[in-house]
Amino acid sequence: MNEKEKKPKARKKTDTAAAPKRYYKKKSAAEKQVKAEAPAAAPAPAKRTRQPKEVKRTPVRIIPLGGLNEIGKNMTVFECSNDMFILDCGLAFPDADMPGVDIVIPDFTYVERNRDKLRGIVITHGHEDHIGGLAYLLKKVNVPVYATRLTIGLIEGKLKEQGLYGKVTLNVVEPKKTVKLGCMAVEFIKVNHSIPDSVGMAIHTPAGIIVHTGDFKVDYTPIDGKIIDLARFGELGNRGVLALMADSTNAERPGYTHSEKTVGASFDSLFKKGEGKRIIIATFSSNIHRVQQIINCAVRYGRKVAVFGRSMINVINTAIELGYLDVPDGILIDIEMMNRYESERIVLITTGSQGEPMSALTRMAMNDHKKVNITPMDFIIISATPIPGNEKFVTRVVNELMKSGAEVVYEAMYEVHVSGHACQEELKLMLTLTKPKFFIPVHGEYKHLKKHAGLASQLGIPDENIIIAEIGNVIETDGNRMGIVSQVPSGRVLVDGLGVGDVGSIVLRDRKHLAQDGLIIIVIGIERASNEIVAGPDIISRGFVYVRESEELMEEARLLLTDTLSACSAAELREWNTLKGKMRDALSDYIYQKTKRSPMILPIIMET
Amino acid sequence: MNEKEKKPKARKKTDTAAAPKRYYKKKSAAEKQVKAEAPAAAPAPAKRTRQPKEVKRTPVRIIPLGGLNEIGKNMTVFECSNDMFILDCGLAFPDADMPGVDIVIPDFTYVERNRDKLRGIVITHGHEDHIGGLAYLLKKVNVPVYATRLTIGLIEGKLKEQGLYGKVTLNVVEPKKTVKLGCMAVEFIKVNHSIPDSVGMAIHTPAGIIVHTGDFKVDYTPIDGKIIDLARFGELGNRGVLALMADSTNAERPGYTHSEKTVGASFDSLFKKGEGKRIIIATFSSNIHRVQQIINCAVRYGRKVAVFGRSMINVINTAIELGYLDVPDGILIDIEMMNRYESERIVLITTGSQGEPMSALTRMAMNDHKKVNITPMDFIIISATPIPGNEKFVTRVVNELMKSGAEVVYEAMYEVHVSGHACQEELKLMLTLTKPKFFIPVHGEYKHLKKHAGLASQLGIPDENIIIAEIGNVIETDGNRMGIVSQVPSGRVLVDGLGVGDVGSIVLRDRKHLAQDGLIIIVIGIERASNEIVAGPDIISRGFVYVRESEELMEEARLLLTDTLSACSAAELREWNTLKGKMRDALSDYIYQKTKRSPMILPIIMET
Repeated sequence: MNEKEKKPKARKKTDTAAAPKRYYKKKSAAEKQVKAEAPAAAPAPAKRTRQPKEVKRTPVRIIPLGGLNEIGKNMTVFECSNDMFILDCGLAFPDADMPGVDIVIPDFTYVERNRDKLRGIVITHGHEDHIGGLAYLLKKVNVPVYATRLTIGLIEGKLKEQGLYGKVTLNVVEPKKTVKLGCMAVEFIKVNHSIPDSVGMAIHTPAGIIVHTGDFKVDYTPIDGKIIDLARFGELGNRGVLALMADSTNAERPGYTHSEKTVGASFDSLFKKGEGKRIIIATFSSNIHRVQQIINCAVRYGRKVAVFGRSMINVINTAIELGYLDVPDGILIDIEMMNRYESERIVLITTGSQGEPMSALTRMAMNDHKKVNITPMDFIIISATPIPGNEKFVTRVVNELMKSGAEVVYEAMYEVHVSGHACQEELKLMLTLTKPKFFIPVHGEYKHLKKHAGLASQLGIPDENIIIAEIGNVIETDGNRMGIVSQVPSGRVLVDGLGVGDVGSIVLRDRKHLAQDGLIIIVIGIERASNEIVAGPDIISRGFVYVRESEELMEEARLLLTDTLSACSAAELREWNTLKGKMRDALSDYIYQKTKRSPMILPIIMET
Repeated sequence: MNEKEKKPKARKKTDTAAAPKRYYKKKSAAEKQVKAEAPAAAPAPAKRTRQPKEVKRTPVRIIPLGGLNEIGKNMTVFECSNDMFILDCGLAFPDADMPGVDIVIPDFTYVERNRDKLRGIVITHGHEDHIGGLAYLLKKVNVPVYATRLTIGLIEGKLKEQGLYGKVTLNVVEPKKTVKLGCMAVEFIKVNHSIPDSVGMAIHTPAGIIVHTGDFKVDYTPIDGKIIDLARFGELGNRGVLALMADSTNAERPGYTHSEKTVGASFDSLFKKGEGKRIIIATFSSNIHRVQQIINCAVRYGRKVAVFGRSMINVINTAIELGYLDVPDGILIDIEMMNRYESERIVLITTGSQGEPMSALTRMAMNDHKKVNITPMDFIIISATPIPGNEKFVTRVVNELMKSGAEVVYEAMYEVHVSGHACQEELKLMLTLTKPKFFIPVHGEYKHLKKHAGLASQLGIPDENIIIAEIGNVIETDGNRMGIVSQVPSGRVLVDGLGVGDVGSIVLRDRKHLAQDGLIIIVIGIERASNEIVAGPDIISRGFVYVRESEELMEEARLLLTDTLSACSAAELREWNTLKGKMRDALSDYIYQKTKRSPMILPIIMET
């Protein structure tokens, strides 16, 4: 039994299906000749006599280690000569098929093997799917981190939790500034997103400029007045962008993402509607602009603000400290002071907009919160849309809040939420401004990447210059061509409690099996010397049936095992593995026939 | 340890929050006086001298046993004098917190206890959430079933699977006809829905007419030309409807649900778009009108049709047999014959529109289907929207299909699906036509019922005449008043394999615990006579850690247990429960401290 985390089996079709995009642009017969003479894994040098304009440049390699064909754990490695840096290092949340797992982080094997080349880590913004893996990475490779001020502030919080505070060099970089990382230089470019201080990056490499948008949207009226630096993206486009890597999250959605300001307008009318009631607003803790708008409304309508939920409190404190939240004196009140104010004079800001079971809002809904009791005098706004997979959690919270008589505003029609990601028209704008030679859609499942690729194709980027990659792919470019040339170790590492990577496919398989049909344990005692059965067979079950109502079934199973053991020869009793197999098979058949269930069957032989 | 299924703990707030709606209309002091003198659980008789118009009628009791505060397992009991009948008997699909459970059915305890009064079962339509519990109920109480022709056809299929075929009296009832069930009579009224032959019911009782819509929408251009019998609902409204019970599924959605015909128009343009490619359409097997429109398009575009998926084949066969599908000769082809036609000349109709792991479409997507291999020459339409909870399954299937190069149409923008349930404007129409005195929103979670109640209130139904009930509530009416007067046993019964009800809260709790952190088994052998430990402690784990990489942890745990046992006195060794507790506590603390995980710990003592 090999319990090692196995890489998912390669799907039969992968090669055939995606092959046309996987390698360098298809070549003519003459070119193929050249290729055949060139070293195997390097980009094919152009034949000088035929293409005199192609200047051979130092190749750059882009290695996505997360964020492709998945939502979350965004991480990309850039390499050139003897230098390497990492862009973002996020986490993903576990799927339903990873029971018990807390978070998922990228496989860092490749980075660890090349730690000597690693010059630093640049971070686009402070969301978990971009910084959540950082502490785990920094424990393995301690290199400087570069990010904007708020992002660094949020990273500091993470490092404190992991006992790394003060042990890592954190560098604040302003937008428009450039960080030199070996032979490459990374320029920070302001973008809009659902957290302040987000940037995209222009990576200046010997092979050319590679633009990575990070997560972005175009907001002409952002709350902090700092509009995405479209001009700079355009300038770079005019200079010549070798490749664009752009956020595909909303590539399925036509049109434009609305400005964060529209939410403010909705809040304004909802504050009027909620007059005379206590207002409770749940949103993402990191959406500081959203919080700012709630505070602005509170000021306008003469309400005090109390903050609930650990992450909300942490982020708001960091944001205030660093000057990203403008809170007039006396507006924020301590939870303990709430009783001093009439309900209609306060607003609660809380976590739990995704219906997370342990969040403050969920506890309020379940009547399980020490400080807040929901009544018909509450007006509740869920300022978020459910992330896929969370729909049922959110619905449950809405139902419970409503059962307490509260009014709950949660539907799209009220415009209490806008996305932080660019829709199709914004994606086209980015493609048009940067005019890249090559395009690599990033951040999204396959369907998102594919839609984004379709948009690029519509705008005239040749299909052979669009690369839909997978994590672990090594995308190499010499400034003339770009393609996938090889593969490095990549995948997911599961974090469960303190364990990083000790839960693999076998452990997960067992957990899922146990969850489906439970467990039956068979115990027998065999005396070493005589090889006689001196105890058992005893049967113990968990998660299988309600035993008290299935006594007959369990007793019959025991008799069956007794018979099975009696029929065993002395030789068979010596071969414990065979003996275990016999017991397992006999019981398994019997149980399936009687119940159509397949519990895990665990025969244990005790030697006495 | 009591493993019996426990009823969920009553939530503290339930009473306070919903109380105003839970009981009879609040009464004046004088009325209260009368009430105090009346028998406790019966409706308060009106004081004749004060309200001469109120005629005291034989009370009728409505007892929902499923479908309120939940989606699925719709079932309602109607009772009057010594007669009782059941309207619908559906199943629900298990939530994520019911691992291993196949389906969920209502608790039939109340019906079984009153089987002598039971006169029959009426069914509104053939969807699983209305007929899926029927076979389980009929095994306990064998009474006649009444439904429209297609519904009876689908029920026959269910009964065959459960070995009940021929043992139950099934009666076909046409719309506009009435079934007499003791002192009540049930009139079938044509409605539109996503399965043909759907009806609502007018229940003529001594206390008045109760209208139950079943699942419905208003389709002015249905595929079979049979429009909902709005006139009859209006006639009943003019005669006087005592209470309306109406479908709340889409009560959150403004406007109207589009006609099924709009999907046909979309198919038409998509068949043009898919020219030259094989077309594959996934939809709900029961949506026979959808299938009809696919067949119509196939005929129009000169394609043959092959059908995939067991339930799709079954339903289509039943529908053809009963004349609900109009299929020209030679259009349907056997799967085995597909190879005789060019890909661009065929359409596949398949199950799997919800991304169900074992469905035909999922197997095609995963490259695991024997007959169908997805290629870039496939044009795939997913003609459905994901049911909440299935979003991730559907997304996975879309991603995999796209990776094979196929074009996949699945977004709302293409109008390849319409709902089968009435939106707000249709709900208002039903309320306006029937003009009920009392309103009971049904079929939906609390948020849906509440929104529907809000619509009724907007249309002038007094709030005290709107009853948001829970399953198990006994709603009683004497024609004048209506309210919740008592409670009967109700809840969910879990079906796992052949077991009905043998998986309860303890079994589920154990399954979830095992799934979260796995299991550690401690085995020791104690000799009966001497009370000495003669074997172990041995430790076996499953679903906890990858043991080969955690040998040190497991060995330390074993040593800890050895120490714990050595420290035990002879007396303690005799008290096995105490001994087990000691081992469990010691190991649990150690494991949590080392890993921050809490696996199930199962100490087993073998007596030798």
